[in-house]
Amino acid sequence: MSNKNVKWFIPAYKWLMTAAIIGVGMTRFGRDLEHQLPELAYKAIDEALRDAGVDRREIGYVAFGNVGGWSSEFFPLPIVCEYAGLNPRGGLRVEAACASGSAALAVACAMVESGYTDLALAVGAERMNELPTPQVVELLGRGGNFFWEFESFGLTFPAYYALLATAYMSRYGATEEDLAKIAVKNHYYGSMNPKAQFQKRITIEDVMGSRYIAWPLKLYDCSPITDGAAAAVVASERIASKLTDTPIWVKAQGMATGTANLTMRRSLVSLESVVEAAKEAYERAGVENPIKEFDLALIHDCFTIAEIIAYEDLGIAERGKGYLLAREEQTYIGGLIPVNTDGGLKSKGHPIGASGLGMVYEAVRQLRQEVDRGRQAPINRGQVLIHNVGGTGHFAYVTILSLEKP
Amino acid sequence: MSNKNVKWFIPAYKWLMTAAIIGVGMTRFGRDLEHQLPELAYKAIDEALRDAGVDRREIGYVAFGNVGGWSSEFFPLPIVCEYAGLNPRGGLRVEAACASGSAALAVACAMVESGYTDLALAVGAERMNELPTPQVVELLGRGGNFFWEFESFGLTFPAYYALLATAYMSRYGATEEDLAKIAVKNHYYGSMNPKAQFQKRITIEDVMGSRYIAWPLKLYDCSPITDGAAAAVVASERIASKLTDTPIWVKAQGMATGTANLTMRRSLVSLESVVEAAKEAYERAGVENPIKEFDLALIHDCFTIAEIIAYEDLGIAERGKGYLLAREEQTYIGGLIPVNTDGGLKSKGHPIGASGLGMVYEAVRQLRQEVDRGRQAPINRGQVLIHNVGGTGHFAYVTILSLEKP
Repeated sequence: MSNKNVKWFIPAYKWLMTAAIIGVGMTRFGRDLEHQLPELAYKAIDEALRDAGVDRREIGYVAFGNVGGWSSEFFPLPIVCEYAGLNPRGGLRVEAACASGSAALAVACAMVESGYTDLALAVGAERMNELPTPQVVELLGRGGNFFWEFESFGLTFPAYYALLATAYMSRYGATEEDLAKIAVKNHYYGSMNPKAQFQKRITIEDVMGSRYIAWPLKLYDCSPITDGAAAAVVASERIASKLTDTPIWVKAQGMATGTANLTMRRSLVSLESVVEAAKEAYERAGVENPIKEFDLALIHDCFTIAEIIAYEDLGIAERGKGYLLAREEQTYIGGLIPVNTDGGLKSKGHPIGASGLGMVYEAVRQLRQEVDRGRQAPINRGQVLIHNVGGTGHFAYVTILSLEKP
Repeated sequence: MSNKNVKWFIPAYKWLMTAAIIGVGMTRFGRDLEHQLPELAYKAIDEALRDAGVDRREIGYVAFGNVGGWSSEFFPLPIVCEYAGLNPRGGLRVEAACASGSAALAVACAMVESGYTDLALAVGAERMNELPTPQVVELLGRGGNFFWEFESFGLTFPAYYALLATAYMSRYGATEEDLAKIAVKNHYYGSMNPKAQFQKRITIEDVMGSRYIAWPLKLYDCSPITDGAAAAVVASERIASKLTDTPIWVKAQGMATGTANLTMRRSLVSLESVVEAAKEAYERAGVENPIKEFDLALIHDCFTIAEIIAYEDLGIAERGKGYLLAREEQTYIGGLIPVNTDGGLKSKGHPIGASGLGMVYEAVRQLRQEVDRGRQAPINRGQVLIHNVGGTGHFAYVTILSLEKP
């Protein structure tokens, strides 16, 4: 092509998305070996369809976020579709590591916006406790580059994020107590969320006294291994407002990938893919100041350090000052911007294929002001930010949901 | 909703797709342990980008068809993107069993048609020989319902398709020789395809003399275990014709799922999901008589019986008469409709995440009349039919490619 500077990938003629979420569902996250994978998925699907007032036979496409590997099922979607009565509608499984739920939402929206169908279902489910925890941790550890990193150095996920944490603390002077404050906040909100895995408050002392997993990260800095499912019904512009009075518009999604090798990254105190994805989403939605334009944010706190780095990558805090938001408790309701009012991955749980849709579940219900007392954020701007990361920034999906039609 | 008869899922206002394939690439399929997964994928991506005359930095989204399980990589897309220099563009892995390649094409098209990007890449890759064949066969055998079928009866894929074959032969009087004729035809075309895994002709006697895998299917009735990759560059209507003189339009895709349990199927001599997907694709593209409207078909011949049943499910043969097309050699070039001019999965090979895009590679090159002498079909109608199945009809993707802009 003659002009290499043309940015084909962000066409000027269409910056905004036109699909809306009209129903959401979610299981209680936790350790749940009583339900098979399709049963977990069905519970979320059923709640989402009822919430949308839509019959399963009206769904035109199914995008299923699921990583698998710990489950016996090798091709899990057909089993989910059969169990939920969604045959013969088309579908696929999507995997974007821990961002698979947001990727499923992206595919469902694209299928609706392309005109393929008027109603699509995004569903995510994971049954991680099917394998013993050490095996799950080993599989997740392969999330980097197996050949160059995992096999050579044996890094697991807590170790990957510990590398980010030590780099961050060393450069900016954040302390282990600052990290702990993220866990305390998220458990505070999780304690009020009947669908959270851990419904109890913890203290800074609890976190500081918990055992080290990978220094400086302790047990209470880490999100748990979780079984669970979440779902969203996506409708076209043409029918969304006919089906509900409160469609939640998917105003924009920014999507990016990062290098598999951590050694190829320019920085360990920022995830480049998140910066890219946020820039794209903000540009598409016309967001200039996230603190002033979002009522709350759902942030991917797989480890406490991840939430702090995300504050900076998302433009909520200045570079190097994210930990101060935690220290000053500015991300509680009433502060600068509430973050993880559902308990976050830390307290709500992290069934990796479902987590992104679990955030969507919370965002939609916050925007509709249906959330449990004590953790409902004031809704003034009508806009919520969702940040869902796969691996250590291998994937980044930033989603903007809005009460206002784009 | 009040009117349960409204078919939202096929909106009347938009029956046709508007994305075009402007470049394709494919590795030589075969046993290839010299190349890592990202290297395989890169070879196909590089060829597709060169074919399209597009720079990798202009790609806006990557849909990666890959089943995995046999590879060490747990999250393979980031490794592929890093190796191919596609970071930081967004992407995901898609899995629809052996139809993953077609599902990747569907996502790439949807991302383009929704307006998210003007240029998307669909790539599929699989490195199946990384595990010993018995383990690969075991993993594939889990393609049905693990809990109800695999664990109880231990069926593997040859056995699943043998059930279909015995049902078909018993009902319609087809013989093992009829099945063998499919293998002979596909090897005939594979012998002329420099990218095929097996480039040699075989005879009916070769097939009949090969050992039984699962009666009535013999070794030469089965597609092989394959390593390989294939890719396609998808462009929006807005730019496709600016970038190439011969855009190949993705006129329609029909997509469906089937029950995970074979025991839940109404019939063993037809795959309902294929019938559904074909019906949808034909309706969207306005196809009434496939024999008269397609120049050739690429059909998913994972086993010889699969091609025969597909003749019927796709409307190329009347119900119960598909084997007669094989017997009368009507699916060679010069016959009623040429099928699998690239050798099919049987002879070209079947790297399951790439196979659908391998068919797209052949279809595009046939439509452009770039195929090797002896296997170039006459192109009069300017339209090719692609049939890609996951499992035993757990997924069905039917794609119609066309020289004419929809």
